Amino acid sequence: MELIWLVPVAGLAAVLYALWLAHDVLKRDMGTPEMQDVADMIFEGAMAFLRRQYATIAILSLVTAVVIGLIVGAVSEGVKAIDYNDGSIEYGAVTVDQWEEGLMTGLAFLFGAACSALAGYIGMYISVRSNSRTASAATRSLKEAITVALRGGAVSGFLVVALSLIGVSTIFLLYTEALGNDEAIGPFLIVGFGFGASFVALFAQLGGGIYTKAADVGADLVGKVEAGIPEDDPRNPAVIADLVGDNVGDCAGRGADLFESMSAENIGAMILGVAIYAVTGDLEWVVFPLVLRSFGIFATIAGLSSVPFFVKDDGKQDPMTPLNFGYYIVCALSVVGLGIATNVMLGDEWYWFFFCGLIGIATSIAFVYITQYYTSGGWRPVKEIADASRTGPATNIITGTAVGMETTAATAITIAIALVASFALGSEADIPGAGSFTTGVYGTAVATMGMLMSAAYILSMDTFGPITDNAGGITEMSGAPASARHITDSLDSVGNTTKALTKGYAVASAGLAAFLLFSAFLDKVKERIGVPLNDELPINLANVDVFAGGLLGVMLVFVFSSLAIRAVSSAAQDIIEEVRRQFREDPGIMAGTSRPDYGRAVDITAKAALRNMIAPGVLAVGMPIAVGLVFRFMRSEELVLANGTVIQDPSGWLAVAGMVMVGTIGGVMLATFFNNVGGAWDNAKKYIEAGNLKDENGVVEGKGTEPHKAAVVGDTVGDPFKDTAGPSLHVLIKLLSTITLVMAPLFIA
Amino acid sequence: MELIWLVPVAGLAAVLYALWLAHDVLKRDMGTPEMQDVADMIFEGAMAFLRRQYATIAILSLVTAVVIGLIVGAVSEGVKAIDYNDGSIEYGAVTVDQWEEGLMTGLAFLFGAACSALAGYIGMYISVRSNSRTASAATRSLKEAITVALRGGAVSGFLVVALSLIGVSTIFLLYTEALGNDEAIGPFLIVGFGFGASFVALFAQLGGGIYTKAADVGADLVGKVEAGIPEDDPRNPAVIADLVGDNVGDCAGRGADLFESMSAENIGAMILGVAIYAVTGDLEWVVFPLVLRSFGIFATIAGLSSVPFFVKDDGKQDPMTPLNFGYYIVCALSVVGLGIATNVMLGDEWYWFFFCGLIGIATSIAFVYITQYYTSGGWRPVKEIADASRTGPATNIITGTAVGMETTAATAITIAIALVASFALGSEADIPGAGSFTTGVYGTAVATMGMLMSAAYILSMDTFGPITDNAGGITEMSGAPASARHITDSLDSVGNTTKALTKGYAVASAGLAAFLLFSAFLDKVKERIGVPLNDELPINLANVDVFAGGLLGVMLVFVFSSLAIRAVSSAAQDIIEEVRRQFREDPGIMAGTSRPDYGRAVDITAKAALRNMIAPGVLAVGMPIAVGLVFRFMRSEELVLANGTVIQDPSGWLAVAGMVMVGTIGGVMLATFFNNVGGAWDNAKKYIEAGNLKDENGVVEGKGTEPHKAAVVGDTVGDPFKDTAGPSLHVLIKLLSTITLVMAPLFIA
Repeated sequence: MELIWLVPVAGLAAVLYALWLAHDVLKRDMGTPEMQDVADMIFEGAMAFLRRQYATIAILSLVTAVVIGLIVGAVSEGVKAIDYNDGSIEYGAVTVDQWEEGLMTGLAFLFGAACSALAGYIGMYISVRSNSRTASAATRSLKEAITVALRGGAVSGFLVVALSLIGVSTIFLLYTEALGNDEAIGPFLIVGFGFGASFVALFAQLGGGIYTKAADVGADLVGKVEAGIPEDDPRNPAVIADLVGDNVGDCAGRGADLFESMSAENIGAMILGVAIYAVTGDLEWVVFPLVLRSFGIFATIAGLSSVPFFVKDDGKQDPMTPLNFGYYIVCALSVVGLGIATNVMLGDEWYWFFFCGLIGIATSIAFVYITQYYTSGGWRPVKEIADASRTGPATNIITGTAVGMETTAATAITIAIALVASFALGSEADIPGAGSFTTGVYGTAVATMGMLMSAAYILSMDTFGPITDNAGGITEMSGAPASARHITDSLDSVGNTTKALTKGYAVASAGLAAFLLFSAFLDKVKERIGVPLNDELPINLANVDVFAGGLLGVMLVFVFSSLAIRAVSSAAQDIIEEVRRQFREDPGIMAGTSRPDYGRAVDITAKAALRNMIAPGVLAVGMPIAVGLVFRFMRSEELVLANGTVIQDPSGWLAVAGMVMVGTIGGVMLATFFNNVGGAWDNAKKYIEAGNLKDENGVVEGKGTEPHKAAVVGDTVGDPFKDTAGPSLHVLIKLLSTITLVMAPLFIA
Repeated sequence: MELIWLVPVAGLAAVLYALWLAHDVLKRDMGTPEMQDVADMIFEGAMAFLRRQYATIAILSLVTAVVIGLIVGAVSEGVKAIDYNDGSIEYGAVTVDQWEEGLMTGLAFLFGAACSALAGYIGMYISVRSNSRTASAATRSLKEAITVALRGGAVSGFLVVALSLIGVSTIFLLYTEALGNDEAIGPFLIVGFGFGASFVALFAQLGGGIYTKAADVGADLVGKVEAGIPEDDPRNPAVIADLVGDNVGDCAGRGADLFESMSAENIGAMILGVAIYAVTGDLEWVVFPLVLRSFGIFATIAGLSSVPFFVKDDGKQDPMTPLNFGYYIVCALSVVGLGIATNVMLGDEWYWFFFCGLIGIATSIAFVYITQYYTSGGWRPVKEIADASRTGPATNIITGTAVGMETTAATAITIAIALVASFALGSEADIPGAGSFTTGVYGTAVATMGMLMSAAYILSMDTFGPITDNAGGITEMSGAPASARHITDSLDSVGNTTKALTKGYAVASAGLAAFLLFSAFLDKVKERIGVPLNDELPINLANVDVFAGGLLGVMLVFVFSSLAIRAVSSAAQDIIEEVRRQFREDPGIMAGTSRPDYGRAVDITAKAALRNMIAPGVLAVGMPIAVGLVFRFMRSEELVLANGTVIQDPSGWLAVAGMVMVGTIGGVMLATFFNNVGGAWDNAKKYIEAGNLKDENGVVEGKGTEPHKAAVVGDTVGDPFKDTAGPSLHVLIKLLSTITLVMAPLFIA
């Protein structure tokens, strides 16, 4: 177990680094009293929403923890020890009985949920404390503004990564060493942690996504369209809610999303490691994901710290450039860390897995570029949409849809290549006793973990987005000088790109991860029905249960998206009515003589968002369970394995397996469409606003022209696509895997 | 082989009935000289497009036929005879050598393509000859107008069904009896027929879909929006192209779509019958699908003939009512026919398959109602979209998208229930030697064939759509009395519903059929690699090739849709420029003193549509082949079957299998979304135009108001969704199955 000592060191380093960053940000100048006034309102609104949201999530989590504890306790048969000698795997006596397993699963669920919530809460706290400081820094220099915004964002990024690493390691140690259980069954015992993380992520992303877009759409429709006042105008009662929304969606929501990715994929990779551990007796295969993530943390600290050195304060540099340089440093150091970790830990044929990890790192770089191509203004796709805006909103929407659907190609092909290549390379590794399928799947796990090494950096760039967005709003509302606004505007545009990048990264990691999480689910089923881990369990698409499950899985992602989009409309309606009421009852607001009741608008948005997240949330959690139960009890078939074993009534888990796997494919494609089409519509509008569209006579068709109005329609349509439905789909995909992993016993007859 | 004599009788009956209908329609009054003038222009335009389109398709088909003949000849190992005794199936000597097989496949392909083209051509001929006669009839009575339009449509419906039945039977007889081959290998020899039908359908639907929407969008944007003249105004040079488009999309396109459905599913069902024939020695299992379809033809003749008796000329009756009554008669008689056919042909436990067929008939009824609920004005979904139009085009699009995605639920659940239930019922049938999997899959095939029994009726109602739509246009352009326009308007609205129904029916049959066609593909693979037909060949979703293939399959349906939508924009651009040119160069057109050059607009639309159908067409045909080849040659794995057989290098066909199956699921869901959202947007606009939307003070917000303008945007966006992308996806789904069925040897190492 060499290198395992790195895990606590890295966890501690990440926390200390986050504390130092937080200290550095908080000690900075908070700006003018006007800036502080606006920032305080955003802070209060954000924290109020977060408290209310987490209170709701806490109650839901507690109930769910009890329910899953009882279900697992009641239907499981306990966890069997694994005997491993002379290369074959046998199951021995039950070492953790069913009620112990239920209790441990419920507690792990709560622990995962708590870690996720804690990371989100502290990250948000610093993020909304960084915005006025960024606004203030922007009155002085670009360099300082970038530094503050990036460090503020990095607090969130590092906390998320650190808490996930510490959380998974702690619960693993507790459930194995502390309780005296075999490490081989440890990963199966901690799956509740991943489910807890998914559960919080689902509601955090849904609630945050609905909040941010309801506030945005509501503020725009009633402010810009009805009252004719500009964006971020202090007379608009919903303006603070809009600024709060950026934080709760992009910071807290995406943080929970990636917290879940890392935790669930880490646990899934450990489960896959068990199959190799069982034949080699080397625990390194199980704990390798933890060590690799530790190297990722060190690489990210180095990369982030280097960014300020690349900033040139000459007014010409694209602020994206220093961020990209930092990212390259993270990737280069990750490769070094990957080399050390695989060489030391993964046996004689470690290099195969080193190549797998390289593929993962390359995939993350590929997605950074793919997203930029499809969503930033300099390239063909956005220009095409801007051009189509000339003939009105309908052609803007039609062309945008075509572009958005086209983007699935690069995503699917990249993921397919990464998966097949890492599987093929992994299966080349010759490990006596472990079949090529086992090492191949492990290869895909190493690729996924390689991709996630840079998660803290990506997440820091993501949270950079709402901080700079807010800084722009604060600059606008506090009447700061135009030079500061120029700086925040350039940062805001970079923030849009980094937010889009993060979504691409999250989709790709979800796609890669699906395969490993699915294999982990099958390992869990094998463990339950007593099939050796190195045997194949066919989820045959020609089986009617698998096919029907797959159909229902794709349907789930469509209907879930429908509910998420509808939730935004419904919540926006509440805000529109509140703003109309305030304008009607106090004419002083429009005159600029009385201050609108921002707090009430924030409050109403929060309530509406939370109310509207229930339906899609229940569908996401309930449908896989319902399908599993219906197929388990309504169908009666048998399945014959390659070794002749006959398995009775497999329909429940077969349907669930089809649902998870095919639903994941559908979800990855649909989320890609939503994220990219929304980003492209947004940037097509910005492209026109920047004066890049000209008519046949060379006259600029900018803000206020008919093409611009058409582009605004596209942008508005894209809002719930890219910030509510798309990101919620990432979470849904991973939730499907973790919920079925935990609930597996329920679907097995 | 009892009842087999019914097949030629039914084929002949259908042809004679179609001839009688055609005679009846053609002898009717052609209307005023003005009507005839317009009708002649539509006729010429439609026939010119059809000739040009079929010439293109003919060349493509000839080349493709030669290519697939050569490929099959070069890579296949010939077809082996099947020995069947004491319940086990063995493969014997090669009875059709590889070059014979290549030749037969190529010829079958051409024959299938020719039958499809012939059916489309004659159907279109009568359809565009029926429009002025319907317009003329509308000046006299509703009853006469319905009768003419429905009979005109029925010519197309019956010819499509008859030519498919006659074509499949003829080629089957030729390749077995005439050439002296065993009937058991017959279905494998005629798969080329299904591929030929798919091939023509793909280009017919794509070309027709692009034509109709490019003309529609082009005519609207430049006529209604730019020039401010009403729809169907004779001054618009694109008006004839628009009317021609209705025929080439809904009549020729949909006809080819359903021709393909029936042919491919019929052949697939026959292949599945071989597995039971091989153990029972009863050829009935193979030819049963032909007999069942024959009963469907008789039922449809009775149902269609009864419609005029239900029409009440009291001005109050909804014209949908008599059409529904006719449909009930078809369904009731189909149940009788199903009972006779299963009882006589399918052994002692025939009743299980009778139940399967009932499920198919019930599914077709269910889809008729689901489509009506989601796309007609009386129900919640359309009202919701109309309401959302109040806040502008963006909310109209957002709400429409949410509604469209929601509709996938009913579709997926209905198909899943139908599939699982028919499989479960079929697998109850105890046939010695045939496993429950074999009889279960046969059960789904019986359900699919049961659903298709009413195809001729559905198709008649579908073609009713463009005929009444054209009749409305002719009435408008020829200045007929308002009473006639009132009648054609009411028929046009019914036509919209029947067109939407047909799409729902086509999607459902594609979904049901996927399972049986996929099983047929696996049977073909088994036959090639020498695995007994009753053994299971696992297409394991946990296999990386299957998963990657699935990902690429869903990507294919998204990218194909993107290309189809983009093709409409691109072709519309050509028309817009032509109309602008005509307006500019001849001011007499707008003044009404000179006649626009309709022919040139028709010609340009045709060229643009054909040019733009190439890219999506090539993608659809090329990608499955490319994926199969890449995986076959780049990957090297082995697959172990349940009986211990080791299969080398299965990656090619595994990836293709994943692609077809998961791609089909994605395609069914996406097509459902496109068809329903487009229909709902269209009817939300009509709902507002009919004066059903009122503001808070009860004032009607009708034509010309802001909500109406917003609804027009939604309707325009929906046009390429529902009439190009959606219907082309149906065809793509089935093409995926038939192309892989024919090309299977190419993917097997």
